Amino acid sequence: MQRFLDAEPLTAAAFAPFGAVIEARDETSVPINQGYTTRFHALATAETGADGQAILSLFRARPRPPQLAMLERHPLGTQAFVPLGGRPWLVVVASAPSGDACRAFLASGDQGVQYAVGTWHHPLLAVEPQDFLVVDRAGPGENLEKAALPEPVTLRW
Amino acid sequence: MQRFLDAEPLTAAAFAPFGAVIEARDETSVPINQGYTTRFHALATAETGADGQAILSLFRARPRPPQLAMLERHPLGTQAFVPLGGRPWLVVVASAPSGDACRAFLASGDQGVQYAVGTWHHPLLAVEPQDFLVVDRAGPGENLEKAALPEPVTLRW
Repeated sequence: MQRFLDAEPLTAAAFAPFGAVIEARDETSVPINQGYTTRFHALATAETGADGQAILSLFRARPRPPQLAMLERHPLGTQAFVPLGGRPWLVVVASAPSGDACRAFLASGDQGVQYAVGTWHHPLLAVEPQDFLVVDRAGPGENLEKAALPEPVTLRW
Repeated sequence: MQRFLDAEPLTAAAFAPFGAVIEARDETSVPINQGYTTRFHALATAETGADGQAILSLFRARPRPPQLAMLERHPLGTQAFVPLGGRPWLVVVASAPSGDACRAFLASGDQGVQYAVGTWHHPLLAVEPQDFLVVDRAGPGENLEKAALPEPVTLRW
């Protein structure tokens, strides 16, 4: 029997157990630069531990089949993804590395996310080819754990 | 007499005295996620000092008149800007807060920059309305210095 996981809209409230949504929310807005810029301030804080540093990378993603077989997590730091092409993309997170604990979110092209430290998530899921800015941790120690899902899950959106 | 500052193309080599260019350069590329993603790794490292943290914000910028009258710098941390709309934008930096020391760069919509700690720069200069992801420092201490240019400079691109 095929198991399905249906994506829900991404909202800061729904995503709160897993991390932060990086989007222009009015309650974070501050006018700066003589009014020529609006700053949506501190939507996420990078956590890297005392021995790590936040690095900025670009991820160039291609769509992949919607059958999900594994999750991963980064126990030593946060990881943020912000789409650069203005196109929707998918986020799959879980409170534990089992299919039942998975939740999927359809992010708009104006929404990034930051996974909280140690949050189980699926590797990057593009709906269309798209580049992302990624802010995560560099530093000593093993910052990647992987876990197979007990059975594959098919993502629907 | 009006003084002009002409923008040059943004390249990593030309910008090196002022910081890093955040762009997909082949020499930084690593295949990950079973080949579905190319990671352009560690294009910039956020520096915040031991008592600071890197935060992620969005800046919503409107174009402003090209007459430049001041510069600013952040003595306690780096500051990175990555365009989210794929549109060109302008970067003005200086080795000292004088008009003669200014250099201007026209960045493509695929290029971000990170100002090195303490680098003099003009506040965000959009060519068209555009959002940017900004990674900079939060923490104790005064992280903003401003300086008036001895005479205004008109930016051309």
